[in-house]
Amino acid sequence: MEKIKPRTLSGFMELLPQKQQQMERFFQVLRETYSLYGFTPLDTPVIESAEVLLAKGGGETEKQIYRFEKGDSDLALRFDLTVPLAKYVALNYGQLTFPFRRFQIGKVYRGERAQRGRFREFYQADIDIIGDGQLDIMNEAEIPAVIYRTFSTLGLKRFQIRVNNRKILNGFYAMLGLTEKAGDIMRTVDKLDKIGPEKVKTLLLDEEIGLTAEQADEILAFIAIRGSNAEILEKLAAYQGRAELFDLGYEELKAVVSCLAAFGVPESNFAVDLTIARGLDYYTGTVYETTMLDYPEIGSICSGGRYDNLAEYYTDKKLPGVGISIGATRLFYVLEEQGLLNPNQPTAPADVLVIPMSDDFVKAVEVATALRDAGIRTQLYTEKKKFKAKIGYADKLGIPYVVFLGEDEIVNNVITLKDMASGEQKTLPVAEAVALLKDGLAEKCAGTVILEK
Amino acid sequence: MEKIKPRTLSGFMELLPQKQQQMERFFQVLRETYSLYGFTPLDTPVIESAEVLLAKGGGETEKQIYRFEKGDSDLALRFDLTVPLAKYVALNYGQLTFPFRRFQIGKVYRGERAQRGRFREFYQADIDIIGDGQLDIMNEAEIPAVIYRTFSTLGLKRFQIRVNNRKILNGFYAMLGLTEKAGDIMRTVDKLDKIGPEKVKTLLLDEEIGLTAEQADEILAFIAIRGSNAEILEKLAAYQGRAELFDLGYEELKAVVSCLAAFGVPESNFAVDLTIARGLDYYTGTVYETTMLDYPEIGSICSGGRYDNLAEYYTDKKLPGVGISIGATRLFYVLEEQGLLNPNQPTAPADVLVIPMSDDFVKAVEVATALRDAGIRTQLYTEKKKFKAKIGYADKLGIPYVVFLGEDEIVNNVITLKDMASGEQKTLPVAEAVALLKDGLAEKCAGTVILEK
Repeated sequence: MEKIKPRTLSGFMELLPQKQQQMERFFQVLRETYSLYGFTPLDTPVIESAEVLLAKGGGETEKQIYRFEKGDSDLALRFDLTVPLAKYVALNYGQLTFPFRRFQIGKVYRGERAQRGRFREFYQADIDIIGDGQLDIMNEAEIPAVIYRTFSTLGLKRFQIRVNNRKILNGFYAMLGLTEKAGDIMRTVDKLDKIGPEKVKTLLLDEEIGLTAEQADEILAFIAIRGSNAEILEKLAAYQGRAELFDLGYEELKAVVSCLAAFGVPESNFAVDLTIARGLDYYTGTVYETTMLDYPEIGSICSGGRYDNLAEYYTDKKLPGVGISIGATRLFYVLEEQGLLNPNQPTAPADVLVIPMSDDFVKAVEVATALRDAGIRTQLYTEKKKFKAKIGYADKLGIPYVVFLGEDEIVNNVITLKDMASGEQKTLPVAEAVALLKDGLAEKCAGTVILEK
Repeated sequence: MEKIKPRTLSGFMELLPQKQQQMERFFQVLRETYSLYGFTPLDTPVIESAEVLLAKGGGETEKQIYRFEKGDSDLALRFDLTVPLAKYVALNYGQLTFPFRRFQIGKVYRGERAQRGRFREFYQADIDIIGDGQLDIMNEAEIPAVIYRTFSTLGLKRFQIRVNNRKILNGFYAMLGLTEKAGDIMRTVDKLDKIGPEKVKTLLLDEEIGLTAEQADEILAFIAIRGSNAEILEKLAAYQGRAELFDLGYEELKAVVSCLAAFGVPESNFAVDLTIARGLDYYTGTVYETTMLDYPEIGSICSGGRYDNLAEYYTDKKLPGVGISIGATRLFYVLEEQGLLNPNQPTAPADVLVIPMSDDFVKAVEVATALRDAGIRTQLYTEKKKFKAKIGYADKLGIPYVVFLGEDEIVNNVITLKDMASGEQKTLPVAEAVALLKDGLAEKCAGTVILEK
């Protein structure tokens, strides 16, 4: 028979079992942490009607989307989790209780040009809090706590949650009489990290934006405001009273900063940063970016912000919200590339391999069943192989413990338990082995998904 | 702005938050149970090259498949998890350790005609054990243990794992000199439950199959063999020595049955059933179906079997295996429809709602942080609403506990904890509340996903 060459499409992550186990741990931390803040899990279809998915229309998105017909339906694969959320909330408005907090970890699709570290199918891990008509600033204040707990639980230490407020930015531009140009200006200022202040100034003076040198200088001075959070707030205080929107943003930022300690977020992992605007016009309040201090080239690993109208394309209901998203596939890829994944946690499919040493498997099956009853992941090895191959199987897979069951063990109603790492071997009753295994496994599984060097 | 009507495609399950929480519990049981048997989690792309996915080609599958072009790629959405597994194993053969045990819970796509209870996007929850060249019968013997533990852990009691062996069937037809007609005969005999023995006989005598009345009677007598597992084995023993394949199948079936007790599977949940053939020609050894005794109309909720060549379309390597699949979306739908989901386990997004009773939120934030540090899912309610609306929020969502923090509590460094079900209220330090909450939540979360009436 002629064979088809097996292959996986480029831009689609498919992991070997050991890596997949690490990915599962990574996701488990996200799920548990999000759940600690009252976010409920959601699952929406991967396929939606193209009309619904592209309600906003236009832009890069439409070019990248996977869109196709089936029968007479015009369908598309979701390209983010926000549009499906907007649809969900508009569709189920009457059955939801607001503020509505949901998390979703799911695959999204973008037909980008394939390149190393870029994925066409990737997981996003989103949380959002949606209000009905209004949503208190405290929800925005809580987001850094979720980000902080998520990354610290993963084991990351050297990261910084950078926060700004779009009302401060928009209010500042209003002061200068530049409201209409604010979008263009912010897009330009967003390039500061990449091209430096000189080039930003040149762009601001360019015909296209056309600021005066005075305006450009004032903008550069403003975004150059640095210091501790308290110092920045103090410097910002001087701008008060000149634009209502600015004053509102200032109060919001103060509220966010003032709760950090109570939320358990250390100052060292948090910075007010006036250069952050988040490209999208969508955001209207607090905006967030999170960077790994030692890997600035990676960019933000968790971003989001406050928006005023989640579902404006589907409903007249005003649904303000705040949300963040982690590009989980890309982040996992980067962590792996940088060697930051903890190699010490077991990635084997089982905790124990039970190897029967006689032809009667019944006792071995009973032991395996007892271990499973005790919650220990157990594999029974019954292939007809030489002893060396059997023990080699445990070794190759990194199964931490092996149980041998020979005639002696069966007669004496005990098992021989070997710790594969230490080589230590003990003969003991199953119940004692369970206790020993639980302690040993807890120790081996300790630690975090990420291990910084 | 003109609005797009928000909608979810028909045939796509999208659950409200409470139901989704039940679905998550359901999946959690599958993941944990599969893991107990040494199956490692895999995740493969939803999109594959159409050429790879349709290597086997033909049949109903091809009509139902979601297939489309993107750029110059001919793509398709996976329609099961077996074909991607075959690709994965063929592709990564050199990096895998055999026997390779994997589980995968993922969405698959079939553009079937939409009808109630039928889904176009649905989860399958599969396990497979793949051998390299050979695979011991003990792997087949272990599958009923996985099925039994999965459904019992879910809380199902009245179910039956029905098992047969294709070698017994094929061997039996070989005895009668009907090997070439075995496929047609088995497809006909498969209809026994639906159309009864008389009509099956008529079909067997029909021109198309063309058996003699004697042959047809012998077949009907064979598949009418009933009794306890021991009785059936005894009756089958009488056929020994007439066909090698039969004898082999008989030994295999005996091996499977003989380990049941050691694997912890009660006789009441298991039956040898000679009428089970599983339509596919794919299976070559033990075959499995699982039925809910009180809902025979639902058909099998977990099926599978032993096959000899997992990846024959991709590789010359002989990769025998055994696997089963649960149609998780359909099963969940049926359980819900039949009112079998346990309504007593909390489905709220949080365990505790913290309601600050003064304008200073700092203490409330600290309390919420402490509860989260202790692993308790906590939501902070800070919307500017009347007290009644705040407590109504907990009530509507079914959040089991509320914490009040007024001036008195703040001064005395305590909180007031209310059990929403009993109405009982206690004022106590946070640490004491944590202990109380943990006990209370363990009690409220006790029980199983399924609650049979």
